[in-house]
Amino acid sequence: MSGNTFGKVFRLTTWGESHGPALGAVIDGCPPRLPLTAADIDLELARRRPGTSIHTTQRREPDKVEILSGVFQGQTTGTPISLIIYNQDVKSEAYEPLKEIFRPGHGDFTYQAKYGIRDHRGGGRASARETAARVAGGAVAQKILDAVGITVLAYTLELGGVRVRQLAWEYLRENPFFCPDPEAATIMAARVQAIKKQGDSLGGIVEVRVQGCPAGLGEPVFDKLDAVLAQAVMSIGAVKGVEIGSGFDAAGLTGAQHNDPLTPTGFASNNAGGILAGISNGDEIIIRAAVKPIPSIAQTQQTIDRQGRPQTISIGGRHDISAIPRIVPVVAAMVKLTLADFVLRQKAAA
Amino acid sequence: MSGNTFGKVFRLTTWGESHGPALGAVIDGCPPRLPLTAADIDLELARRRPGTSIHTTQRREPDKVEILSGVFQGQTTGTPISLIIYNQDVKSEAYEPLKEIFRPGHGDFTYQAKYGIRDHRGGGRASARETAARVAGGAVAQKILDAVGITVLAYTLELGGVRVRQLAWEYLRENPFFCPDPEAATIMAARVQAIKKQGDSLGGIVEVRVQGCPAGLGEPVFDKLDAVLAQAVMSIGAVKGVEIGSGFDAAGLTGAQHNDPLTPTGFASNNAGGILAGISNGDEIIIRAAVKPIPSIAQTQQTIDRQGRPQTISIGGRHDISAIPRIVPVVAAMVKLTLADFVLRQKAAA
Amino acid sequence: MSGNTFGKVFRLTTWGESHGPALGAVIDGCPPRLPLTAADIDLELARRRPGTSIHTTQRREPDKVEILSGVFQGQTTGTPISLIIYNQDVKSEAYEPLKEIFRPGHGDFTYQAKYGIRDHRGGGRASARETAARVAGGAVAQKILDAVGITVLAYTLELGGVRVRQLAWEYLRENPFFCPDPEAATIMAARVQAIKKQGDSLGGIVEVRVQGCPAGLGEPVFDKLDAVLAQAVMSIGAVKGVEIGSGFDAAGLTGAQHNDPLTPTGFASNNAGGILAGISNGDEIIIRAAVKPIPSIAQTQQTIDRQGRPQTISIGGRHDISAIPRIVPVVAAMVKLTLADFVLRQKAAA
Amino acid sequence: MSGNTFGKVFRLTTWGESHGPALGAVIDGCPPRLPLTAADIDLELARRRPGTSIHTTQRREPDKVEILSGVFQGQTTGTPISLIIYNQDVKSEAYEPLKEIFRPGHGDFTYQAKYGIRDHRGGGRASARETAARVAGGAVAQKILDAVGITVLAYTLELGGVRVRQLAWEYLRENPFFCPDPEAATIMAARVQAIKKQGDSLGGIVEVRVQGCPAGLGEPVFDKLDAVLAQAVMSIGAVKGVEIGSGFDAAGLTGAQHNDPLTPTGFASNNAGGILAGISNGDEIIIRAAVKPIPSIAQTQQTIDRQGRPQTISIGGRHDISAIPRIVPVVAAMVKLTLADFVLRQKAAA
Repeated sequence: MSGNTFGKVFRLTTWGESHGPALGAVIDGCPPRLPLTAADIDLELARRRPGTSIHTTQRREPDKVEILSGVFQGQTTGTPISLIIYNQDVKSEAYEPLKEIFRPGHGDFTYQAKYGIRDHRGGGRASARETAARVAGGAVAQKILDAVGITVLAYTLELGGVRVRQLAWEYLRENPFFCPDPEAATIMAARVQAIKKQGDSLGGIVEVRVQGCPAGLGEPVFDKLDAVLAQAVMSIGAVKGVEIGSGFDAAGLTGAQHNDPLTPTGFASNNAGGILAGISNGDEIIIRAAVKPIPSIAQTQQTIDRQGRPQTISIGGRHDISAIPRIVPVVAAMVKLTLADFVLRQKAAA
Repeated sequence: MSGNTFGKVFRLTTWGESHGPALGAVIDGCPPRLPLTAADIDLELARRRPGTSIHTTQRREPDKVEILSGVFQGQTTGTPISLIIYNQDVKSEAYEPLKEIFRPGHGDFTYQAKYGIRDHRGGGRASARETAARVAGGAVAQKILDAVGITVLAYTLELGGVRVRQLAWEYLRENPFFCPDPEAATIMAARVQAIKKQGDSLGGIVEVRVQGCPAGLGEPVFDKLDAVLAQAVMSIGAVKGVEIGSGFDAAGLTGAQHNDPLTPTGFASNNAGGILAGISNGDEIIIRAAVKPIPSIAQTQQTIDRQGRPQTISIGGRHDISAIPRIVPVVAAMVKLTLADFVLRQKAAA
Repeated sequence: MSGNTFGKVFRLTTWGESHGPALGAVIDGCPPRLPLTAADIDLELARRRPGTSIHTTQRREPDKVEILSGVFQGQTTGTPISLIIYNQDVKSEAYEPLKEIFRPGHGDFTYQAKYGIRDHRGGGRASARETAARVAGGAVAQKILDAVGITVLAYTLELGGVRVRQLAWEYLRENPFFCPDPEAATIMAARVQAIKKQGDSLGGIVEVRVQGCPAGLGEPVFDKLDAVLAQAVMSIGAVKGVEIGSGFDAAGLTGAQHNDPLTPTGFASNNAGGILAGISNGDEIIIRAAVKPIPSIAQTQQTIDRQGRPQTISIGGRHDISAIPRIVPVVAAMVKLTLADFVLRQKAAA
Repeated sequence: MSGNTFGKVFRLTTWGESHGPALGAVIDGCPPRLPLTAADIDLELARRRPGTSIHTTQRREPDKVEILSGVFQGQTTGTPISLIIYNQDVKSEAYEPLKEIFRPGHGDFTYQAKYGIRDHRGGGRASARETAARVAGGAVAQKILDAVGITVLAYTLELGGVRVRQLAWEYLRENPFFCPDPEAATIMAARVQAIKKQGDSLGGIVEVRVQGCPAGLGEPVFDKLDAVLAQAVMSIGAVKGVEIGSGFDAAGLTGAQHNDPLTPTGFASNNAGGILAGISNGDEIIIRAAVKPIPSIAQTQQTIDRQGRPQTISIGGRHDISAIPRIVPVVAAMVKLTLADFVLRQKAAA
């Protein structure tokens, strides 16, 4: 039973391969009478678009969305919203050599093992390009969050070992890394250039803060808010770890250190990361995602082909050096999709 | 829309409050003709049972399961398997003082915010006691894994800052901590005793290794194997972070360091943690869960009551010092439930 | 993937075999703070109870429900409501001869074909006894309908060819047939006695009218209100046909005859049966279910055994002559469960 | 929670309005390595296409599908199959007068009541045009049925009171009514012409026979095969009743008449319609659907506008006289989609 749908009330279904004619999304369960235009979505798509800086891939795609249904005279109608983004600038022939070989760190081997057939062109369905549909869906989800007053801030916390030292939101969109610390951003840029020369790639950490989330969202016991956020964020290709609030630091703390005291004006600290017993507590929600380095590197790597014979591979071409920054709006989108779903679920639950 | 069911084909629904008459589970989607007895389940329940060592709570419950349906003459029939565990040794009056006050680090505040009503006795639905039903479900899931040859090993990797230095499986059940390193276990025991005197509690890390999992399990894109494992593990009350394979360490590595080379005899390393592009790759699956310290501590804490007035609270009674070790079989159960579901999903997908 | 759960927001999961220790239901998604007692449910269970009249089976079961979770101090808490009904008066040995033989018109053959194993005692999971859990669930659903002002009236429209000629609600509970026409009820009683002497059984038609349903319930396109009602009602063992409003008569009408004109004070007729384009229109919802004759009859029938050899069978014992009247509250329950789910779904959709 | 997805393992999600730029479907859960081309789907679409005979609407649309994903080199890949059909020949301005008025028998009133907004052009989402996406999905489902050897035959059983007297399959595609009785077809044609002159429309009955279905499909208790077939067929706009096997005739029969005796060579009769206790019994599956007359008629009808004021309406234009024959392939498609889902579900269940 396949897994291309996310959400229970606000449901996003995505489809499309990297080098097919198009990719897209169907959103079912969006309430009626919300204002929505293609421009709203294009704005978000622009943030994850390849080719927006020297730090990201040179594949140039306008990534303009077309709304095919579910919107009438600028408003959602309550029927499914179908979004399509046509693929352009596709150089499939460049992938011909990869038809018979498994790239390390990619899904080539596992897709072959699972399906017995594989669209090898650009990673097919496993391509990061798939996330464009998530970002488009997230832009629609934001309309629901707007009505509640929820804001989702996503940013680079760490890249190639360089860690942010301040959260100065005014810088967030001033640099190509979605980095709230301009000094760190400068060091990150240098780190990216250095590793590029080595034909290697970098990992990092994305952090998300959700502001304005009311207490009461989340559905015990398996659909706890943090549990579904963990699924949402871990479902992004490059993510290897997810933390809420104190995260792995919690393992080394004592109860007296970790418990957030309640006061008449709110929680005195936020180790909980805004979620207690799987339900939002009204405080800021804090999520972190560990992002692995891009597996496509120019350095020569050891691998095998479909016949199991040893091969070497060097992946040139127009690849990013890190999933960051392009993954930042994707993580934000998954958080938005999760929250929009829980906002609607709570309406049914109350 | 509530969230008390886990899984899509192999589905576990749990119910029950800490101080109600009983708690239980209904398993729907279990294939017919698998051998199953109450004793199979009791064995797993014994592992998470309170009162099995001085390190865990003194509430003594036999935790014997009764199978009410779905099994005929020792075999599953394909119909829903209903499991019930009666609550005993319930001292509800001890919780009377907590009726009007919110315990820090617990779900008291958020349950009240969400539902406007709360069974305050022993944490109600938010009690760790709920996990007994998960463990029972996991014992049934194991029957499906047995047929495939999948083994799930769960153990304490870290407790109160004490880290395991070796994985010697023969010691795993020799100490009360499910700790594969006897020396570490001895230090952990001392650490627990020391913190107990301080009226405080400890966090830690649980690690799970899945052996014998075939390549091909997991459903792109949102139901990636790692994504659903993340939800499964994060849905356990005390968990604040989940990692797969390299986890957060991946953020500091380069692609050349992180990629696992493929060789004719398998992967040369396992930073992937057995999962690539959301699909098992045939290697060992490695999952880690960060466990926060138990929030119920004897030390005096600052909090508020239902009227929002400041209060202090000191939680005495028979509480554990750490969710570890009792959480270890719970994490194992959630991994088993996830894998059993994906084994059956793959049968439908192939 | 099994199908023991009904509903998407208000979800009923049932379990249990005819001759197991108990049967029950778990209701997930019931809003908090609704008043609920076991007595509310017992009242509904009494309506479908065997042994309430000479026209129904002599198996005598008190059918008292126990609420095991989800209710605290007389109110629902928003957590799963677990209901259990213990089986009593079970004479399993009477079914021993049926272990190796397939009863005509029953699920014996198909359960064996599907599962390769079968609890033959009293029909196991396929027994009409399973519907007790539906009726219990329907009693909880009614609490949600109460808040909206929805009333569900179910009654016998036809039994053994005897058709009701008037809908006089005051007689509905005055006779054992849930029959709103006392004269018809008298003829039905005679018909039942006559067929009983012949060792045969009777079919009939149940009609349901839903009053007070607001316009706007139902989810196009596949979860139309009439579509899900059709599934709900057809999922009851003996039902072979479902109609909404004009039903099969619509096939013979013209558009001018069938269309219900709209007027400032409502629809001028109700061929729609209260549902247009899958959405309730505010008018009375009308559903009819065709009920086949009970397949267990004393007359000798031709059949085969598990080895495929020809056999004859005569089924004596304490069987009903018709699924009517006991099926009437079951049909009502399925309609209630459907409507409660759509009431909550609409809250999330608006 | 919206309802634009059908199926649990083989899942069809449809989207699109009558007068939007396109409509389409996403199929998730289709197994890999099945042969599939756009031509396979176009063949089915041609059967329900408007303008194929004088008996159907004059809107002329080529209805060519484009496969946007999930198929690689002529084979399914296991990833979502996205299908798009562009709308052409759209005369939206013809619907301008209907913006403020509710057409009797249509969803205009209920869509407005539910959503508070309505795409009035051509019925919007409630248009029968939506069923093109179902037929496209059914063509994909057929690929799964092919592998099992299941054939679905759908035909007109009755139109405008004219009933088929023989099932001569060789005539099925010889007349525009999918009518297996050439004499009946001739009378039907005359009946259609006569009613057209009166500015009125006709209803009818569609029957489906499924051949080659193995025993064992269907999931008790709520997802019985007949229950889900009932939902599937009733979810088609014009359907007011669904029968399985004996259907409403069962109400008037006795058990001795209705039970199908089992013999060493199969069932001696088929009142069950191929389904016992919700599970296929290996016999021919028989389903009937009552189809109401097309509500759009030229005759003057009484109605109201959005302000609730009385109005009259006469609907001219290019409307069909009956949903038959165009609904016939739609009913077939829904049956195929249901069976394909249960075939895959049984793989997971066994």
